[in-house]
Order: sequence, then structure tokens, then C-alpha cells
Amino acid sequence: MMRTTVIKTLRIARTAALLFPVCVGLHSFAQSRIVRAQVHSAGLEHNLFGDSSDQTVGIYLPAAYAAEPQRRFAVIYFLHGYNDTRAMKVAEIVQQMMDKQIAAHTVEPMIIVAPNGLNKLLGSFYTNSPATGDWEDYVVRDLVAYIDSHYRTLASPDSRGIGGHSMGGYGSLMLAFKHPDVFGYVYAMSPCCTILAGDLALGSKVWEQAQKVKSVSELPGLIEHGELLSAAMLAAEAAFTPDPHKPFPFVDSPVRMEGNHWVPDPEVFPEFQSHIVVNALPGLLPKIYKLKGIYIDYGAQDEYTHIPLGAQALSAELSIAGIPHVLDVYEGSHSSRVHSQFETKLLLWFSTHLKQ
Amino acid sequence: MMRTTVIKTLRIARTAALLFPVCVGLHSFAQSRIVRAQVHSAGLEHNLFGDSSDQTVGIYLPAAYAAEPQRRFAVIYFLHGYNDTRAMKVAEIVQQMMDKQIAAHTVEPMIIVAPNGLNKLLGSFYTNSPATGDWEDYVVRDLVAYIDSHYRTLASPDSRGIGGHSMGGYGSLMLAFKHPDVFGYVYAMSPCCTILAGDLALGSKVWEQAQKVKSVSELPGLIEHGELLSAAMLAAEAAFTPDPHKPFPFVDSPVRMEGNHWVPDPEVFPEFQSHIVVNALPGLLPKIYKLKGIYIDYGAQDEYTHIPLGAQALSAELSIAGIPHVLDVYEGSHSSRVHSQFETKLLLWFSTHLKQ
Amino acid sequence: MMRTTVIKTLRIARTAALLFPVCVGLHSFAQSRIVRAQVHSAGLEHNLFGDSSDQTVGIYLPAAYAAEPQRRFAVIYFLHGYNDTRAMKVAEIVQQMMDKQIAAHTVEPMIIVAPNGLNKLLGSFYTNSPATGDWEDYVVRDLVAYIDSHYRTLASPDSRGIGGHSMGGYGSLMLAFKHPDVFGYVYAMSPCCTILAGDLALGSKVWEQAQKVKSVSELPGLIEHGELLSAAMLAAEAAFTPDPHKPFPFVDSPVRMEGNHWVPDPEVFPEFQSHIVVNALPGLLPKIYKLKGIYIDYGAQDEYTHIPLGAQALSAELSIAGIPHVLDVYEGSHSSRVHSQFETKLLLWFSTHLKQ
Amino acid sequence: MMRTTVIKTLRIARTAALLFPVCVGLHSFAQSRIVRAQVHSAGLEHNLFGDSSDQTVGIYLPAAYAAEPQRRFAVIYFLHGYNDTRAMKVAEIVQQMMDKQIAAHTVEPMIIVAPNGLNKLLGSFYTNSPATGDWEDYVVRDLVAYIDSHYRTLASPDSRGIGGHSMGGYGSLMLAFKHPDVFGYVYAMSPCCTILAGDLALGSKVWEQAQKVKSVSELPGLIEHGELLSAAMLAAEAAFTPDPHKPFPFVDSPVRMEGNHWVPDPEVFPEFQSHIVVNALPGLLPKIYKLKGIYIDYGAQDEYTHIPLGAQALSAELSIAGIPHVLDVYEGSHSSRVHSQFETKLLLWFSTHLKQ
Repeated sequence: MMRTTVIKTLRIARTAALLFPVCVGLHSFAQSRIVRAQVHSAGLEHNLFGDSSDQTVGIYLPAAYAAEPQRRFAVIYFLHGYNDTRAMKVAEIVQQMMDKQIAAHTVEPMIIVAPNGLNKLLGSFYTNSPATGDWEDYVVRDLVAYIDSHYRTLASPDSRGIGGHSMGGYGSLMLAFKHPDVFGYVYAMSPCCTILAGDLALGSKVWEQAQKVKSVSELPGLIEHGELLSAAMLAAEAAFTPDPHKPFPFVDSPVRMEGNHWVPDPEVFPEFQSHIVVNALPGLLPKIYKLKGIYIDYGAQDEYTHIPLGAQALSAELSIAGIPHVLDVYEGSHSSRVHSQFETKLLLWFSTHLKQ
Repeated sequence: MMRTTVIKTLRIARTAALLFPVCVGLHSFAQSRIVRAQVHSAGLEHNLFGDSSDQTVGIYLPAAYAAEPQRRFAVIYFLHGYNDTRAMKVAEIVQQMMDKQIAAHTVEPMIIVAPNGLNKLLGSFYTNSPATGDWEDYVVRDLVAYIDSHYRTLASPDSRGIGGHSMGGYGSLMLAFKHPDVFGYVYAMSPCCTILAGDLALGSKVWEQAQKVKSVSELPGLIEHGELLSAAMLAAEAAFTPDPHKPFPFVDSPVRMEGNHWVPDPEVFPEFQSHIVVNALPGLLPKIYKLKGIYIDYGAQDEYTHIPLGAQALSAELSIAGIPHVLDVYEGSHSSRVHSQFETKLLLWFSTHLKQ
Repeated sequence: MMRTTVIKTLRIARTAALLFPVCVGLHSFAQSRIVRAQVHSAGLEHNLFGDSSDQTVGIYLPAAYAAEPQRRFAVIYFLHGYNDTRAMKVAEIVQQMMDKQIAAHTVEPMIIVAPNGLNKLLGSFYTNSPATGDWEDYVVRDLVAYIDSHYRTLASPDSRGIGGHSMGGYGSLMLAFKHPDVFGYVYAMSPCCTILAGDLALGSKVWEQAQKVKSVSELPGLIEHGELLSAAMLAAEAAFTPDPHKPFPFVDSPVRMEGNHWVPDPEVFPEFQSHIVVNALPGLLPKIYKLKGIYIDYGAQDEYTHIPLGAQALSAELSIAGIPHVLDVYEGSHSSRVHSQFETKLLLWFSTHLKQ
Repeated sequence: MMRTTVIKTLRIARTAALLFPVCVGLHSFAQSRIVRAQVHSAGLEHNLFGDSSDQTVGIYLPAAYAAEPQRRFAVIYFLHGYNDTRAMKVAEIVQQMMDKQIAAHTVEPMIIVAPNGLNKLLGSFYTNSPATGDWEDYVVRDLVAYIDSHYRTLASPDSRGIGGHSMGGYGSLMLAFKHPDVFGYVYAMSPCCTILAGDLALGSKVWEQAQKVKSVSELPGLIEHGELLSAAMLAAEAAFTPDPHKPFPFVDSPVRMEGNHWVPDPEVFPEFQSHIVVNALPGLLPKIYKLKGIYIDYGAQDEYTHIPLGAQALSAELSIAGIPHVLDVYEGSHSSRVHSQFETKLLLWFSTHLKQ
């Protein structure tokens, strides 16, 4: 069905191209381009970490955007991971892949928007928080409004998708689950923070490491020593269980040491858990039913061991609620196939599903 | 640890008995007894099914209650299942078992309270509902207040436990999870409605049967034809997704037919699911952390196939949240071992855990 | 990646067509056709039910088969379900879909082979059994040899796929898992018998019904009364735990009644379970690693409630073993979308993955 | 039921003591004691690591053993963990606990046998292996024969239990599952190696660390640096996938690096996985049905994150197969409550279940 549609579209396009070679010629003169924008968000003002309320966004415009000045385009928002590639660099990679796939007639020309999700803690989790600022609002409200008002978009959930990798996979799921009126389709790549099991289990040492951080300057060292997940959990605490009245890092810790092991804080841990995807899902069902498409992938060798467990649990919960979705398990680690999955699966899936 | 305590207590008691044979004599004259009470609940008034707001309760008082007029006793509330044994009959069975076990010095003398949970739909699910009445309030507030004011109870959660079988297992879990300040311990026997999988999956025919019932008089026939679960789901709908403005049975159905299969209603199904134990659990965590003990049992051959699945899922969720509990899987069907589990496991567990 | 390949191929084909209109003309004169064959299998001789050792096969040959007499074609073997559509009828449905999709240039011309899997018990489970005959050998050895020797096939696992629905989904998984040197790819639609939970749990009434059948003539009635799964389990017993020395239906029952519930027979139940996909999987891993592609779909509303549970469990096990696969959950019942999934997903998936 | 039995027994014993005070006097003169034995095992000869074929065993004999020279005793075999407490030290700890509990009349006098399970790799996994020697045979055959021939034991599976912690929990499960004719009951404390998920997932870094070890002398350093699980997996490889023809550590590695991630070796990984409890279980069912009792515990905060996952999966599999068992989840880490669970749960459970 999906292929039928796209191929028919492409066939017609190509048939037209053969009939009207001038168009083809025009086409070939146009170039895709990347725009760097600064988008302001009132909700990011006054965050406690001093992060700017004007955030960089990388915007990919396909060649057709210039070549066909009357045409409107579907839009994909792509959220990067914790401590991951900056927005403009994401846009550059996107440009290479999109240009190539559009040239091969395998994907439709679409606008791709790559916001920044990094803050001083190296990850906003795209979540509203009195400590880190309202990143969810920033993406869903301010950024979408900016894009729709500055570019020729197909401004409806049918033509607007959201994707992301790792922390961005988490963000894409949560934002789509909460705002199906904004994003009609979601493609989560190796989404993090879907379940508190495996390396996010209560017994995992990430909790201990996360509670030890005393300043932002310690984070790069922590990450270098292979403790990225601990650093990420600190950022998650600032997003999920913030306490503006506490000193840096302005969080209520969801766990506390008792003897030699960490026990859940009876008030804070449930609050933290309510942001974990499988726990948030039941309460979001009325909205999730409005989504038009869900795709989740992960590598079976993901070194963040909660990710396979969480994706499986998420698939089981969606299935119980009667919600269609695809779970795509590939051979690979957390990052080994981000590029290839993006180019051959994510782009294609959005291209065939988003209304063009 | 548990056994150490009880055996020490019992040993001391017996040592005393040997030293002071007169006490033993007095003891043997006292008899246990069952009291039938009618307990009023304002929250049951004006329910739409015409069920009485004065509900029958069977109350077991051990022989020691009469023999030791200064002594206060721990209390177990036991909730029966859907279309199951009436309160007074439960109390009779309890009397036999308790007298026997107390005589064998294996359990402490305790008061056991058996409320009625049957309504016109043959099951209240011990839930507050504008259609069926506020059965949760009835048990947690009115009945507990009645018992504590009319009997010499140890009126604290340390000495108050709740158990139940099937629908009563469901009720005992939900009431304890929501009211750990009332019930300190919960023992759920083959609890129903813990997950919407197996025979409660969307594809199960129970949904179809449940939607067909047009009057209360059809229920016995339905049950006779082996469709007890369908009848129970109708009662569950009246408890979980009531709509007082609809005609009988005053429910919004969580599912509706589309083509040849049932699809979830986007508004109602999530409301129904929020009453299912594994879905309710994340939101109740702050309260569940206050519970002092959780015990869940089921027969591996339970004919209600969601029960093993739900108990396993519940155990996994409790484990993730760091909540101690015991999962006891025995050979047997839904009902084949209710009596033996009650007598040899439930009574013993409460006896050793409740503060006597 | 997959789409790139196919679309490139198709594009080239179409470009050629535009350049050489004569070819197009020739093409349009050729017609697809269905061949009915009888294929003998020594392993089916002497089965105890008197089923023929010459089995009907429906073979779909695309128009290109006649039009391009030098060309060799990839082959899909498709196994039907229990008591389901007969081979020739399957081939007819396949013809409609394939002709349409080939005309739309969305799938490559491929040969599709639809063997019969029905025996006197209405289902062979495509399994070797001294009672029902060696159906696995029939398909894997005799039928494949017949097709490769009688037709211009691409006779390698790279170009040979197997699919099936329900009992056929089961068969396709097991035959592919056991014979990756024969079938390189497997697409299982709503595969049955993947786990003994839900309606295949020990407590399910299907076991009771299955043990009651005294003759083949009772089966249609059983099925009419909505007990298809019970009938299917009888057939499964004849396939998985046969006992040629017993009277009809020549099985050792995996369960026996004890009191009011069914308990596993300590010898027979493990043998039965060893044929259930999730249990067979660990022992077949060395072979499964050789498979090139696995796709599993099911409807979230499948009325056979073990199917969603089993597909989820299977996905989890494959993931743990690092084996790539896709799990595709759609809205629908056991049969509501067999045709559409076959036409839009299965055909496309094989077309893009099989070496053409 | 269990309590009824033991308390009755104890009550009778105490009644007797009160009637015959001389016995009490005799009793109080006897002391429990620990015996150190060296037990030879032909199967441990010629192991490739140079471990002795004469292994130390600590044997606890209760005071009653000396006081009642005609009496025979039930026996518990207790297997320690990887790099854990040595046999004689285990026996000392056992002595304190048992003397205390026997004095409190909460457990029956029993013999407890603590074999050594440490080899040069710091853990034998109680498994037969051409590299490390036949540790399973050593325990099941040689040690049991030694104990039964040298001590007044009740030499039947009804009176013989096996328990263990971590690697010893693994060993106790596997030896009981394989030899129900030897051990009638098993109590596994925080058993390891039950599933390859969490910190034993393919993506976990333990695999990388494990493959790097070049000599036995590196192990203590690895463990000191918090990599105990990596060291344990090396020992597991020597036990599960040995290759006597390879150089030290004489193993075929179940995984190999491909790009930046570990992929399963198609031949070796399945062999490794076949030793993992949930994978071994289906094939062992005929024997597991003969077991009389199974108890599994773990701390929800276990830092070895596969242990909660594996215990849950194991419980689910046992449930599906209709096998009674208890899953006891407590608050605690891998080791924080070993002593208290041993003293208050394990001893009590064996005391009430083993035939005395």
C-alpha cells in the first residue's frame, strides 16, 4: 500500500519529466540548502542553567523548494540524542542523505528541521521543567509555529512527522504521544528512557554516579570515562524531577542510598517514573489513538541495555491497547547504524506516510 | 524472621498455658462466633441499580474475643469474587478454618470481616462509580469505621490486612494500593483484571458477549453457559466506565465493533484501562511504597488466562519499582485451591505479619 | 536500501520499456497462469489417517514466465492455515494480487507455490509425524525439488522465501528456522503455536475440548461451534506428540485431568512444548543465524489470544540472540487483514529482499 | 500447611522435652560442629587449569547429630557464588545461624554441606567441562555419595535439598533441574545466568572485558575495578563453551567483534545460551516435573541487572509449564540480604519441606 502510493507518485513525476524535459532542466539547476535559524522561546527564559532562550535550528530545504515556488512541503522534525551531534551538523548530514535519495527518486522532497536539544547538562530531554526550561513547549509550539510561518509547509499533522535518536527517540515518542494534533507520525530510533530496567534498573550504578556530580564541568570527564548514561540521568533528573529551590543541579533525586543500595524515594521516584515512556503511555492513550503511524527501531546489541527491553515493553503495551506500530530490530549497537537506518528506513517511511 | 516471631509468641503462650492450667480451662469454654451486621453507606445510596445502601457483613470473632475481654485483635478484611460466595457463607467457612488453625496454634486469633461485594450485576469490583455506587468508600471508610467502633480491634494499618479472591483479589490490591494508611498488608488470591491480555485481550470474545446483555435477568444464563467472564466484564464496565445518562446498563462501552473485530473507543478504553492493576500501578506508587507487605498467588492452570499473565506483569512492575512482594504459583485452577491457600497461606501470612 | 534496489530495478525496466516499446507490447500479450500439480512424497505414505501421498499444489506463474523464456524466477512458498483455503484457491487469490502489483510495477514477477497442508484432521502443521506423515519433508524436500526441477527457478535460499498464515505462519517459521539452506527469508502472518499462554495456557478449555474428539467427523461441528482452536490442537497433538500404537487419533495427550483442572503429562507435555516456537528457538539458533530475513505480523485484536503474546515473546527472544527481524502490529483480527497484508506487505517484502 | 507440620513436630518435641527433662539435659551438653573434608572426584582430574581433584568441603553437623546417635538427618547442599566465601567459612556462618534457629525451635536439626566451587578462574559454575573439569558430577555424584556414606543422612530426594547464591543459585537450579532424583527441593538465591538480557545482553561491555583476559593473574585486578561480572563470564565460558585445544583460557568465545559491536558466534553463542537457565528449561521439563519444591528470591536492587529479569522470565516459564514455585522479591542488592534470607527464609523453607 505504502509503496504503491509512492511509486505511483514517483512514476507520474517521472513520466511528467520525460514529457516535459524543460522541467527536468530547471530541476537540475536548483540546489538544496541548509538554513540556520535562531528561534526564540519564552518558555526557555529564566531557566536555572543560563541556557539561551534563542535556540539554533538547522533547516534542510530540498532543491524543489526553490524550484517550485508554489509548492508546499511535508516536514520532519528530527531530535538528536544526549551529548550528540549539534543541530547544524545534523542538518548537514541530512542534506547529503536527502539529496541522494531525492535524486534516486526514492523519497519525496521534504523539509527537515533539526532543533538543538542540548543544554548545559548536555540534554534537555525535550521536556518542560522549571529548572531547565520548557523544551517541550519550545519544540511543539514555538518551533513548529516558526517553521510554518517562515516556510511553505503542509501545516497539518498528516504532513508533519517527528523522529529522533536515543534521547531524541524518547523526545519524539513523548511529543508525538502528547501532541498528535501537531505530529501525525513518529519514528523513534533506539529511544532511551522507555523502561527502568537493565542499565536503568534501581540496582544500576548509573544512579550512584548521577548523584555525585557537583558541577557542569564534571560532565565531559564523566562521559569520557564511559559514564555517559550517568551524565544523561542527571540531565533527566533536571528535566523530570526538578526542584528549583535546591542548589545545583536543582533536582530532587529519585533514589537515595540506604545501606549499600539505592532505594526509590517514595515521592520523587514515582514522579521520575511517570516520565518513562511505558509508564506515561496508559495516561496518554486517548491522544496516542489519534496518531497515524508509529515506528520504533533499535539495535539488538545496544550497549544501553534498557533500550531493547523498553522497546519490547513499549511494543507489548501498544499491542494490548490495539495501536498499530512497527518494531524493527537490527544488528548493531546504539550508534552503529543511525545513519543507515535514517537514510534507508526513516526517510522512506516518512516519505511514504506523510501526506505530500 | 516471620516464623521466629510467631513461634516465640506461641511458645510463650503455650508455656504460660502449661504453667497456668486454669487459663487453658477458661479458654476451652469460649467459642468463636459469627456476627451478621448490616452496615450503611451513604455512598451506596442512589445507585442506579437499586442495590441497598445497607449491606450485609459477616464478622468472625475468635474464641479469644470473648475469653479475653480486654484484648484487642488484628483484623483481616476478605473480599469475595464475582458471583461468588455470599458474605455470611464466607464467614462460616472462615470460622471452620480459623478455629482449626487457632486450635493448632498455627495462627493467632484475629477478627475476620467478610463484606458483601455483590450488586445486581453480581459484582461491584469494590470500586466507586456513579452507576453502581461507591463501593470503595463503603469498604475503606464506612465498614472499617463500623468495625473499629463496634469491636475491640487494633485500629491501625499495622494490624489491618485485606485479602480477596478473583474480583476480590482485584479489590484487595486496588484498595490497599490506594489506602495504605488503612490497610498495611494485602494478600491477593488469583486477582482478576490485572492486565488486558489473554482472555481480556481486545480480540477476546468476552467483549462481544458483554455488550449484548440487555437486562440483569440475562446474567445467570450467561454464566451458566460458561460466559462468567463476559458477565463480569459488564459489571466491570458499570464500575470502571459508568455513564449514568445512558440506559441500562449505564455504561460507556470501552470497545466498539469495526468490521468483524472490536476496536478500543479512544476515550472510554483508556478510562477502563486506568482501572486495570498494571496500568493503575505507576500512578499509585507513592502510596504503594507505604504498604508493609504484598502477597500474590495464582494457579498455573487458571482458566481465566489473563490472571497468570497479569500476576507476572504485576510482579515485574513491582520489582522495577523496588517493592518487595511474594509471587506464589501453585498447581491448580481458578478455584480449586482457594480454600487450601486461604487456610494454609493467607491466614498464616497475615498472622505472622499483622501486629497482634 | 531495499527500496533503492527495487526502485532502481523497476526504473531501469521502465526506462527500457520506454525505449523499446515493442517489448512492452510483447509483455502485454503474455498472461500469468496457475498450474495445478500433484506432488508425491514418500514420507506421506502409510500415514495413519489415510491421507494421500500425492498432494495438490497450486503454482502461480507470472506473465513474464512465458514472455521471457530464458529468465529464472525467485519463488515464494505460501502455507495456508488450519481448516483454511485450499491450495488452488490460494493460488487464484495470489494470481489476482500478483498480476495487479506486477502491473503497478510494485513487485517483481515471482513464482508463488501454494501447497496443501490439510489432512483428515484439517491441519498437518507442516510437521513430520509417524501418525500424520512427514509433512515437513514433503514441503522442504519433495516439493522444493519438484518446483526447482519443473520450473525455471532461481534455486538458492537467496531467492527462495517461505510465508504462511496462522498454522501456515507456524509452519513457515519452523521450516525456515530448521532449513535456512532451503529458505533464506520467512514472513510469518499471525503465526500460531508460538507460546502456550493466553488461549493455549494450561488452564484454557481448548485442552479439554481437544481430548474429547472421538472421530474425524466431529471436527466440522466443533469448528462450527466456535471451537476451531480445540480442533486445531487435536491436529497439533497428532503432529507433535503422535503415538501410532494408540487408537484414533493416535496421540499421546500432553495434558490429563486431575480433579477439575488439566495438568501437564510429565513426558508428553515437554515433547509438545518442544514444537512450540519460543521453546524450539534456542536449539535452532545455529540455523536461524543463517537466515537472511524474518518478518512477523499480527493483528492486535487477534481472537486467538496466544498469537500476540507469542509474537511478542518471539521478538524478545530473537532480539536477545541478536537476530534482526521486523514485528508489524496492525489493527485487525486473526483474518480481517490477511489479504491486505499479503498484497501490500508480504509480496513487497519478498520482492525487495529475494534475489531476483 | 508447611507451618502446621513443623509446628506440630516442634510442639510434640517440646511436649516430650517437658515430660522427659533428662533428654533436655542431654541435649544441652551436645554441641554442633563443623567438619572439614577432602572429597576426591575423578571427573576433576586432568582439568586444564591445574585445579585439585580433591576438593574441600565444610560440613555442618547439628548438636542432635551427636546427641541422637540413631537418628538420620535431612541434608542441604549449599553452593557459594563466584569469587565468594570459601567452603569452610560458609560452614562457619551456617553453624551460627543453624545453632541459633535450632535453639529457637524454628528449624529442625539438619546437616548442611558447603562444597567448594572455586577454581583458578574463581568459579566453576558447577558445570561439567573438558576445560575446567566435571564439577556437576563432582557435586551430584561424588559429594552426595561421600556424604551419604560417611554420615547418618536421610538418603533420598525427599530429604535432600540444594541451594546457593548467585553462581551458586545458578548451580542449584541447574543441578536440581537435571537431577530431581538426587535433590528434591531447590532454593535459588539471586541466581545468576538465568537470561542474556540486562548486563548480560549482547551489547553489554562485559563481553568485551571477558575476551581481553590473558591470564589468571589479571582476574583479581579486574574484579577490584568493578568488573566482577566480566571475570565471571570468562569463567562461564570455560564452563559452557570450553575448547581444550585452544590456548588459555581454553574457550571458544560466544561473541566476536564486528565493527564496533559484538555479534554472536553462530556456533558458540547457541552453545553458551543452552546453559542459560531459561533456555535450558524447556529441554529439562520432564525432570523438573519431578521436583518437589522450587523457591527463587532476589533483591529488586540487584546490581547485576540480568538477575531480576532472569528470575521474572524463569517464573513465567515455570508458570506456563504448570510448575509450582515461589518468587520472593525483597528490597536489597545482590549481597545485602544473603545472610538474612538464608537464615530466615532458606533454612525455614528447607526445614518445613524436607522430610525430616
